[in-house]
Amino acid sequence: MNSKKLGVLGGGQLGRMLVEAASRLNISVTILDNPVDSPAKQIQSTSTHIHGDFKDPLKIQELAQNVDVLTIEIEHVEVEILEKLFSEKSVEIHPHPFTIRIIQDKFLQKTHLSQNEIPVVDFMNITDRESLNIAVEKFGYPIMLKSKILAYDGRGNYVINSDDEITNALKTLGNFKIPLYVERWTPFVKELAVMVIRSVDGVIKSYPVVETVHKENICHLVIAPAQVDGVILSRAKEIAEKSIQTLKGAGIFGVEMFLMKNGHVYVNEIAPRPHNSGHYTIEACETSQYENHIRSILNMPLGSTSLKVPAAAMINVLGKSENIQETLGPCVEALTTPGATIHLYGKKECRKGRKMGHITIVADSISQLYKRINPILNIDDENSISTTSSKNIQPLVGIIMGSDSDLPTMKACAEVLKSFDVPFELSIVSAHRTPMRMVEYAKTAHVRGLKVIIAGVPVKGKILDGVDSLYSIVQMPRGVPVATVAINNSTNAGLLAVRHLGAFIPSYLQKVQEFTERQESEVLAKVDKLDQVGWENY
Amino acid sequence: MNSKKLGVLGGGQLGRMLVEAASRLNISVTILDNPVDSPAKQIQSTSTHIHGDFKDPLKIQELAQNVDVLTIEIEHVEVEILEKLFSEKSVEIHPHPFTIRIIQDKFLQKTHLSQNEIPVVDFMNITDRESLNIAVEKFGYPIMLKSKILAYDGRGNYVINSDDEITNALKTLGNFKIPLYVERWTPFVKELAVMVIRSVDGVIKSYPVVETVHKENICHLVIAPAQVDGVILSRAKEIAEKSIQTLKGAGIFGVEMFLMKNGHVYVNEIAPRPHNSGHYTIEACETSQYENHIRSILNMPLGSTSLKVPAAAMINVLGKSENIQETLGPCVEALTTPGATIHLYGKKECRKGRKMGHITIVADSISQLYKRINPILNIDDENSISTTSSKNIQPLVGIIMGSDSDLPTMKACAEVLKSFDVPFELSIVSAHRTPMRMVEYAKTAHVRGLKVIIAGVPVKGKILDGVDSLYSIVQMPRGVPVATVAINNSTNAGLLAVRHLGAFIPSYLQKVQEFTERQESEVLAKVDKLDQVGWENY
Repeated sequence: MNSKKLGVLGGGQLGRMLVEAASRLNISVTILDNPVDSPAKQIQSTSTHIHGDFKDPLKIQELAQNVDVLTIEIEHVEVEILEKLFSEKSVEIHPHPFTIRIIQDKFLQKTHLSQNEIPVVDFMNITDRESLNIAVEKFGYPIMLKSKILAYDGRGNYVINSDDEITNALKTLGNFKIPLYVERWTPFVKELAVMVIRSVDGVIKSYPVVETVHKENICHLVIAPAQVDGVILSRAKEIAEKSIQTLKGAGIFGVEMFLMKNGHVYVNEIAPRPHNSGHYTIEACETSQYENHIRSILNMPLGSTSLKVPAAAMINVLGKSENIQETLGPCVEALTTPGATIHLYGKKECRKGRKMGHITIVADSISQLYKRINPILNIDDENSISTTSSKNIQPLVGIIMGSDSDLPTMKACAEVLKSFDVPFELSIVSAHRTPMRMVEYAKTAHVRGLKVIIAGVPVKGKILDGVDSLYSIVQMPRGVPVATVAINNSTNAGLLAVRHLGAFIPSYLQKVQEFTERQESEVLAKVDKLDQVGWENY
Repeated sequence: MNSKKLGVLGGGQLGRMLVEAASRLNISVTILDNPVDSPAKQIQSTSTHIHGDFKDPLKIQELAQNVDVLTIEIEHVEVEILEKLFSEKSVEIHPHPFTIRIIQDKFLQKTHLSQNEIPVVDFMNITDRESLNIAVEKFGYPIMLKSKILAYDGRGNYVINSDDEITNALKTLGNFKIPLYVERWTPFVKELAVMVIRSVDGVIKSYPVVETVHKENICHLVIAPAQVDGVILSRAKEIAEKSIQTLKGAGIFGVEMFLMKNGHVYVNEIAPRPHNSGHYTIEACETSQYENHIRSILNMPLGSTSLKVPAAAMINVLGKSENIQETLGPCVEALTTPGATIHLYGKKECRKGRKMGHITIVADSISQLYKRINPILNIDDENSISTTSSKNIQPLVGIIMGSDSDLPTMKACAEVLKSFDVPFELSIVSAHRTPMRMVEYAKTAHVRGLKVIIAGVPVKGKILDGVDSLYSIVQMPRGVPVATVAINNSTNAGLLAVRHLGAFIPSYLQKVQEFTERQESEVLAKVDKLDQVGWENY
C-alpha cells in the first residue's frame, strides 16, 4: 500500500503510538532518540533505530538518509537542519520546517495567528523590565509572563499578580536570557481543543471539539465531545481549521483554545503533531490521530475523523512520585471500569508529574461517561467530581412550552426526566410570540445534541377540555410528523422520551426495564392486598 | 499492575495482536516461533524471543523457564510437554493442557461436548472402510469425512457425495494413517460464532453473537451482531457459554456454531485461543479478545465484552497469489472507506489463501455497515453482495396492525420506511385476538433490536371518523406512554420513526435533513409558480 519509510524525531509516547498505528499498516518506522529502549523503539523491532539526541544535526542527517519522510513527535527540535534538508529535497518533511519554526516561538506563533485574523488573547513583546512595566500598565494585573521558546506543560509561564512579584517572575524565567513576552490574563470558562488533519494537497478535516481540564498546567482530563452549546462547537471547529490553513505542510495538529464567558473563542496554542488532547481518538474515533498523521504525511487518503461512540474521556496517568505502583492507582481502578482502555508507555523511570500512560473511557452517553470516570479520577483527587458534575452535561431532551402558564402541567414531565437521570432543558419557545427563537431552536436542536423535543402536551382548557389542543398537535401536515400523548399527561411524555433514549442508550433501557418491573410489582401488590382484605375493606 | 511474564507458543498474527494488547499494559511477552522476524516478534523488541519450533519440547521447556505464564496461539502443539510442565507446577499454563488435548482431536472434542449435553451434529468414529460404510448407511450422502487431528481452515475435511468418491476421499485424508471420523451433513442456514472468556476463578463472560461467512473453508467475513432473531442470539450465547464451562483453564475461546433452518444451534468446533471471528473486537468492543485473554490468564479483572458501536464487520485479507499488491486490493479500497481499520500482519511472503491481514469496519447501523463493506468485498468477488443483501438485516422498526383491514392505511407508512432505507417488519399483532403473541412481541422487541414500534395509527371508521380510535391511543394509562399522529396519517408515523432513528444514527439524520430540504424546495417552487402565473391561472 505504501512502501515509504518513515523517520521520527523523538521516541516518547507520541512516537510509540505512531509506531503502533504504522505497524498495523506494515509501515517501517525509524526512531531517533537517545535511549536504546525509548517507548517508541520498544514496539517495533528493527536494527535501524538511531540512538542519539533528536536535536543533534548529524543524527538527524543520518536519519534523513535512511528514510523517505521525516516527522516529529516534539516541536522543540533544531529547525535549521530541517530547513537545510528541506531545501536539498533529500527527504520529505512534515510538518513543514516553516510551521515548526513559527510554532516553536510562542510569540511568533501568536503574531502569525493574529496577522491571519485568528482570535488570540492580547499579547505584547517585552525586551526588558521597562517594557514589562508598559505591558502591566496596558493589561493590568494579573498578567501572564511567558517564555517565547521551550515552553510546554506550564513550564516557562509565570502569573504576576502585583509589582512585588515582578523580580521573582523575571528571575524564574531567566531574566531575558530566554526571550519573553506577556499575555493579558484570560479568565476562561473552559478550555477546548480540536485535532485538525491536513493532507499533502491541503485538504483539511477536523476531529470533534473536546474539552480539556488541566491540573498544575498539565492536561489531566479530556471529554469528547465538549459539553458546550452547538454554536460554540461550530465556532471552535471553524477557528481551529482556519488556524491550520495558515500553516504549511501535511500532518496532524492540535489546536488548544479558551472559551470565554461571552462565548468568544481564542486560540491559545497549536501543536504541529499528535497531541495529548487527541489520545482519545484511538478508541473513540473511526480513525485515530496517529493513523491519520501517518496517512497524511505519506500522502495516503485521510481517514474518517468521526466519533464512533457517543462519549469518551481520556485521563492522563501522571507520575505521583518515583513509586510506579502508587502512580498506577487510577489504572487499577480502570481495570474494573467498563469501557476503559489502559495505555502504559513503557517508561522505565517514574517521576512526579511525568506522563506514564493514559486511560481512555468510552460510554453510551455523557451521563454514563461521568459515572465511569469519577471513580478513576477520585483515586487521585477526592474533589475532582466537581469538574465532572451533571451541570456540565448538554441536554438530551428539550421540554419547550408556548407559555409559562403550561409549567404546572409540564412539571410532572420534568420530574420524570430528573428521576431517570436524563439531562434536559426546560424553556419557553412560542411559535406565535417568539417565532425567530422557535426557528433557531428547531434548526439547531440536532447540532446541540437534543435527541427528543417535548413541545408541550395538550393542556386541558376551560372550554373543550383541551380537545382543541389535542387535535391541533396531531393535525400537523403530512411531512411534518408530530405525535401526542393524552391531554395533561406530561408524565407519559417524559416516559416516552426516556424510552426513545433507551432504544439506543443501553443504560437508559435498563432503567426503563426496572421502572416497568417496579410498576408491575406495585399493581401485583395491590392484587394481593385486594385478595387479602377484600373489596369492602380495600 | 502485573509483573508476570508471558510466553506464547507461536508467533503469527494471533500472537502479534496479543503482543499489541500486552504492550499497552506494559506486559512482557516472549514468543517461541521459528522465524526471527515472525509477525509477533516484530512488535515487541526484546532479546529474549526464542527462535525455534513451537512444537519442540526442549524449546518449550526453555520458554517455560523464562516466563510465569504460558499460553498458545495455535492448539496444534505437543501437549505432552505441557502436561509435564503443568504437573511440575513450574509455570502456569492457559488454556489447561486437558483442554488443549480435547480440542486437538476433533472426535474427542465432539464426544466431550456430546457427553456434556451440548448440541452437536451426529458423528461417528470410523477405523476402516467397513465402518465408513456403516456410517454411510446410517447418515446417508452427502457425508463429511474428517481428520481427527491437525485439521483447520478446511484442511482435513472431505465431503463424500456417493460411493464412487470414497476411495479418493480416504486417499486424500491419508487412508487412516491419520485417524478419521465422519459427521452427518449439516445444511445450515448460517454460521454463528461467539468468543467466550473465562477467568482463573471460572467466571464466564461472552462477546456478542456474530455471523461468519466462509469462502473455500476459510473465514472470509464476520458480521457483528449476527443478523438473526433475538431468541436465536440468546440460544447461541447460552450454548457457547455452557460449552466453555465444560472445559478447564482460563483464557479466551472461540465457539463456532451452525444455525439450522428450524432454529436449532449446533456447536461445530471450539478454538481454545483468540479467534478470527473475534478480530472485530479490537475496534468494536469495549475490551478486545486479545486484552481479555491476557487479563484472564494473568488473573486480572476481566474487561467488558460489550459492543461499543452499533455494527461492525471483519473482512480477511487473504493472499490471492504471491503478489502482495494484488492481495492488498481490498485494503486500498478500505483506505477510502469511513470506519475501516486495516491490520496487516507483517508476513514477508504472500501465498494464495494465506491470511495476510484483516480489515475491521464499524458503522452506525447495519444498513450503513453493508454500504461500507460491499465495495471492499466486491474487489475480490463481484457476487459477494448477495451475502450482504438487505434481506439479511434485522428490522429496526416494527409496524404492527390489529387486523389486515388496517393494511391499506398502513401501506403509506411502509412506503416511507422503504424510501428511507429503514429495515422494518410489518405484521398482525392483535391485543384482542392474539394476546399471547402480543405479549411475546412486546417482551422481546428490544432483544430483537427494534428501536420503534408503530402499533398502527388511528383509522377513520364509519362512525365518529376515527376520533374514538385517536382517543383510545392517547388515553393509555399513566406509566404506559404511547403517542399518536393524526387519524389515517400513517405517512407521518413513518416519518416520525425515521426521525427517532436519525436522533442516534447519523446516516438517517442526513436523510431526514435532505427530505426536509426537498420538501421546502417543493413548496418554494409552488410559491414561484403562484407568483409567475397568478392565482387565477394556478
